[in-house]
Amino acid sequence: MSSTYGESLKLSIFGQSHGAAIGMTLDNIPAGLPVDTEQLQMFLNRRAPGQNDHSTPRKEEDRPEFLSGIVDGYTCGAPIAAIIHNHSTISADYTQLKDMPRPGHADLTAQIKYKGYQDAAGGGHFSGRLTAPLCIAGGLCKQWLEQKGIRIGAHLSVCAGVADEPVYLDWENPDLDAIHKDFPVLNLESGEKMRQAITEAKADCDSVGGLIECIITGLPAGLGDPIFGGMENRIAQIVYGVPAVKGLEFGSGFTGSYLRGSQNNDSFYVHNGKILAKNNYAGGILGGITTGMPLVFQVAIKPTPSIAKPQQTVSLSLLEDKQLEIKGRHDPCIAPRAVSVIEAAAAIAIFDALLSSK
Amino acid sequence: MSSTYGESLKLSIFGQSHGAAIGMTLDNIPAGLPVDTEQLQMFLNRRAPGQNDHSTPRKEEDRPEFLSGIVDGYTCGAPIAAIIHNHSTISADYTQLKDMPRPGHADLTAQIKYKGYQDAAGGGHFSGRLTAPLCIAGGLCKQWLEQKGIRIGAHLSVCAGVADEPVYLDWENPDLDAIHKDFPVLNLESGEKMRQAITEAKADCDSVGGLIECIITGLPAGLGDPIFGGMENRIAQIVYGVPAVKGLEFGSGFTGSYLRGSQNNDSFYVHNGKILAKNNYAGGILGGITTGMPLVFQVAIKPTPSIAKPQQTVSLSLLEDKQLEIKGRHDPCIAPRAVSVIEAAAAIAIFDALLSSK
Amino acid sequence: MSSTYGESLKLSIFGQSHGAAIGMTLDNIPAGLPVDTEQLQMFLNRRAPGQNDHSTPRKEEDRPEFLSGIVDGYTCGAPIAAIIHNHSTISADYTQLKDMPRPGHADLTAQIKYKGYQDAAGGGHFSGRLTAPLCIAGGLCKQWLEQKGIRIGAHLSVCAGVADEPVYLDWENPDLDAIHKDFPVLNLESGEKMRQAITEAKADCDSVGGLIECIITGLPAGLGDPIFGGMENRIAQIVYGVPAVKGLEFGSGFTGSYLRGSQNNDSFYVHNGKILAKNNYAGGILGGITTGMPLVFQVAIKPTPSIAKPQQTVSLSLLEDKQLEIKGRHDPCIAPRAVSVIEAAAAIAIFDALLSSK
Amino acid sequence: MSSTYGESLKLSIFGQSHGAAIGMTLDNIPAGLPVDTEQLQMFLNRRAPGQNDHSTPRKEEDRPEFLSGIVDGYTCGAPIAAIIHNHSTISADYTQLKDMPRPGHADLTAQIKYKGYQDAAGGGHFSGRLTAPLCIAGGLCKQWLEQKGIRIGAHLSVCAGVADEPVYLDWENPDLDAIHKDFPVLNLESGEKMRQAITEAKADCDSVGGLIECIITGLPAGLGDPIFGGMENRIAQIVYGVPAVKGLEFGSGFTGSYLRGSQNNDSFYVHNGKILAKNNYAGGILGGITTGMPLVFQVAIKPTPSIAKPQQTVSLSLLEDKQLEIKGRHDPCIAPRAVSVIEAAAAIAIFDALLSSK
Repeated sequence: MSSTYGESLKLSIFGQSHGAAIGMTLDNIPAGLPVDTEQLQMFLNRRAPGQNDHSTPRKEEDRPEFLSGIVDGYTCGAPIAAIIHNHSTISADYTQLKDMPRPGHADLTAQIKYKGYQDAAGGGHFSGRLTAPLCIAGGLCKQWLEQKGIRIGAHLSVCAGVADEPVYLDWENPDLDAIHKDFPVLNLESGEKMRQAITEAKADCDSVGGLIECIITGLPAGLGDPIFGGMENRIAQIVYGVPAVKGLEFGSGFTGSYLRGSQNNDSFYVHNGKILAKNNYAGGILGGITTGMPLVFQVAIKPTPSIAKPQQTVSLSLLEDKQLEIKGRHDPCIAPRAVSVIEAAAAIAIFDALLSSK
Repeated sequence: MSSTYGESLKLSIFGQSHGAAIGMTLDNIPAGLPVDTEQLQMFLNRRAPGQNDHSTPRKEEDRPEFLSGIVDGYTCGAPIAAIIHNHSTISADYTQLKDMPRPGHADLTAQIKYKGYQDAAGGGHFSGRLTAPLCIAGGLCKQWLEQKGIRIGAHLSVCAGVADEPVYLDWENPDLDAIHKDFPVLNLESGEKMRQAITEAKADCDSVGGLIECIITGLPAGLGDPIFGGMENRIAQIVYGVPAVKGLEFGSGFTGSYLRGSQNNDSFYVHNGKILAKNNYAGGILGGITTGMPLVFQVAIKPTPSIAKPQQTVSLSLLEDKQLEIKGRHDPCIAPRAVSVIEAAAAIAIFDALLSSK
Repeated sequence: MSSTYGESLKLSIFGQSHGAAIGMTLDNIPAGLPVDTEQLQMFLNRRAPGQNDHSTPRKEEDRPEFLSGIVDGYTCGAPIAAIIHNHSTISADYTQLKDMPRPGHADLTAQIKYKGYQDAAGGGHFSGRLTAPLCIAGGLCKQWLEQKGIRIGAHLSVCAGVADEPVYLDWENPDLDAIHKDFPVLNLESGEKMRQAITEAKADCDSVGGLIECIITGLPAGLGDPIFGGMENRIAQIVYGVPAVKGLEFGSGFTGSYLRGSQNNDSFYVHNGKILAKNNYAGGILGGITTGMPLVFQVAIKPTPSIAKPQQTVSLSLLEDKQLEIKGRHDPCIAPRAVSVIEAAAAIAIFDALLSSK
Repeated sequence: MSSTYGESLKLSIFGQSHGAAIGMTLDNIPAGLPVDTEQLQMFLNRRAPGQNDHSTPRKEEDRPEFLSGIVDGYTCGAPIAAIIHNHSTISADYTQLKDMPRPGHADLTAQIKYKGYQDAAGGGHFSGRLTAPLCIAGGLCKQWLEQKGIRIGAHLSVCAGVADEPVYLDWENPDLDAIHKDFPVLNLESGEKMRQAITEAKADCDSVGGLIECIITGLPAGLGDPIFGGMENRIAQIVYGVPAVKGLEFGSGFTGSYLRGSQNNDSFYVHNGKILAKNNYAGGILGGITTGMPLVFQVAIKPTPSIAKPQQTVSLSLLEDKQLEIKGRHDPCIAPRAVSVIEAAAAIAIFDALLSSK
């Protein structure tokens, strides 16, 4: 467990926010898979900060340096290792963190678990910055899935309390290209309202959260394993590795628990010689195994814990209450940037399930 | 993956609904842990059918036979193996399943994955009956956790659309003994409404679902690992192994995504020399690691897919639409019986995390 | 680790020598593989005691009862579980073991590791009896490999200091059928000398050991993975799980270390359009990966530690030296019975490597 | 499996001989362990080439750059990542390798497994150069073991057919400091004969192999797990990851198989209130678990496959026999440099077993 994921592939993520470099190794990948580094860079840029007026203005150069595993544009069968060197880290911002843990952050739990030896600067290994190597691995898996006709798209289904509407209705053929590139929503008007709500939260020295819906099309039926190896289990194990994720549901999920069986069961029917499932409330998974319908899940992203507003915390050394003001610039909402991270996580889980299928 | 779980302990679950026996092996458990088989039996009885008028009247004798790993009432260090022999299985009920998959069940996906070789009788390895061996393992882990002062309690927070109220307010010391034994709710009046709604659904040849809230108290702070080894990841991987679970959230979860950071962040404060977190919207976990506050999660259980109402499905051999009437008797709501299963899953995940902590 | 093996398949072995039953679960096996239980029984009988005058006269009924995973003679995709009930165990023979550990046995180390909670009767989980479930799993894998044209054969290359001669010379096509069925040697005259030496050791209240050479033919080239996933690593991890194995070498092994590179390197040459390797000193493996030549390894089996001769040991309670006389009847040499166990271990490792190959 | 090792710790090794860098990640290491980089460098230097007149004169700067996991000289709980940049690689030397595989190397098997996509330059991921990151991980584990009083020492027990004599006799307290630093033997006269034999082999355009004996002292009794988790299994799985290892034995090993039980069994006796085992033919392991006596194993290193002498091979494209002359400079014997690599492998296995012990 820890920072390693996968049944067939072995993904290991390393680095701290202000350390020398962050990176990943991806082992057990077949040889001969093409790697398009430009397409990968475009994918990584979707996660990078500074893309719009709402995200943090820190400049990070998320340009991965591949150390091994790729020769002449193809995987060579050896483990893939890639790193991103850290620059422009102002550790002075974080000196008080070890004594005064930020509410909603891992400062306190890291301090207890690692007995003060953790790298506290910038959140260390717990920083959202560690999603960059996740996106390197996920971006590669996404490319390889696309070659098999498997596509992954995610959008902000809710952000700052504003829903993206209308939602997908045609679950047989959801149009992933309908997701807008610059701001990942289906409806630009909804997107505009989200942006305004984020701006307002920022003006209030506060932050907001959101929901991300992720859709995977083109999956073969029969993927996944029973009990602990189900597609839900596999996706859950990696998606909960993305900081700020506090909820995950598949298909009708929580809403489905309020329905009756006759409503929530997807009827099967034959269409053009193919077996389809009406509504796809199952989210494309029955018994942990794909039905061949799109796989659909939704994650809950909590509001950014770093806010400019003064907050109550404690001094660990003095064991007394303290007021904390977090300096530095932080995203008032990380959900927009998390959209591609969720796609990356899904891509890794799906590619691993494919590699593991007998 | 598949039917095996655990980082330090290795849990393997086997059996099919109508096979010779179902069972589990639990490897890598320290020697010298006491085993109270009577207490275990009481725990297993909570899951067993036939406990009340709503659950299926099938008689199953969920009395585990221990084959190894326990000597004179103590674990001996060797793997623990236990089985439950299957009785009174009427496989004739299920003959049509291979050709006409039940909506909402794994019949179709199993047929595709296993190419017709799967054990279709009673749902085979996908049957809810496989939660009995999970409860053997979980019941043991629960005993061992209790010896360390760690308690696990779950209740029906919502069932058939009826909420259990009032919910827990005092997150510092939630009273697990307040959960009623005969029907797992905090408020018996709410419980009565749930039962009525289940009865109505049954009368309509239909079914209902629900939400289960699980609370773990007495946990040490600092448990869990970053990224993929977080407590959320660990719990998610096993909880999604319980059939019918389609959603999982920690702390404020989905609701928290609609809040602002200043609302969702739990302030830290000092109380009697201990550091506590206000509200516990984090569900006792920050950065994947326990805060020392109660660990709280909620799962969504879909309505029982087996309903008496006629449903639309297909004939796989004829590739044409068909109407299906499911015979046999089925729980109109499995959420009440799933409560102890969720406790079992949580106990295994927590005990494994404790064994894995350095 | 512990009693669980496998990258793709998950083998879990449980049971104690004098417990209720011993058994195994074998998870992640594809559906639709045929199971010939009669052939399996014949394979298990090769390991069973009482086959000849030298082995222990205890009667064990090594007839596995399959609890799950097999339907109508085919694997169904669910985990395979099988048990063998224990009979005719005379635990009284072993009462003194906890205080006076037998030299060469795990009595002392189990006592320290498990602090007295271990099942000492008959050696508990450390008993050679636990190789019976290994042979169930291995016997199944062997059948499935044979359907792919992969055959596994082992013989006593040395027993009681007597070598089986002549050894294989034609490494391109070693004749596995040349191994005799009743006593696993190539040369019956050598076999007769081995039997005499075993009889002599028995008459001296002593025991002897031996070497087992195992050959796997029909393997595809390109199987195995670099570094820790090599065929040597995979075979070593399981073969050292067989009690009494204290050495393992591949191809020219220890002898090869005394040769020069020009002698030990296998020249490649083309023969009938195929690339072959002269001598096969590499044992069919280069860089951890199969060459397509037969895979050849040899294991060292130590002399049975249980001997009738008085031995020096200690009383753990008194912490003083003691003389020990081991009662009961024991094989004066377990190497003949271990031959099929080594085949079983090899079959599991190979089948797992095949399942894991991308 | 593949290039990842460990039950509790997760070691991942990456890189190709002539790629941008080689390196390793080491996950799941407790926080607060001190790291002495100078001591580590001295350990790495023992493996580095160019130490004496016999080893290859290539200049490699095996100076690891730590990217993460270490802060102010202590582990911080996050994964440790370290790389070594590759320099002065003359890939032109290796252009013909893809078509004309070198006997005794992984060229042929890599070509088949990876279908030509492998990085053939310098042996790619199969190069002995990959033992440098193994030594980074092993050197760290060795430091941490030493703090617990556990020491690891290895020597050339045989090299080029010359034995290091006298061997250890006092198995209760083997003197690891008796191993010479500049050439790892107990007896410098034997060492001198080995060097001469290596020089002769080099003059003959040939190579030689050897045996390495590794001894671990200060181990607690009770370490390791039954069946597949035994100390032999753990050590075997990693030691066979060192290129050129073709044999492995514990304690009396192969020799023990020629002894009688009464000779091979180590009698227990009490000495100064401690239980000791006479002779330690068990190599410090019974039933896979440490006895508290020194753990002793011996590995067989094959002669360097790269020799200047012309050899027979094939052209894969023409499918015809060819003569090969390997250019470049290669160690006529890698056994001396492999001594510290075996120590590193042992250190990782032992440290992992300690982390995994409950």
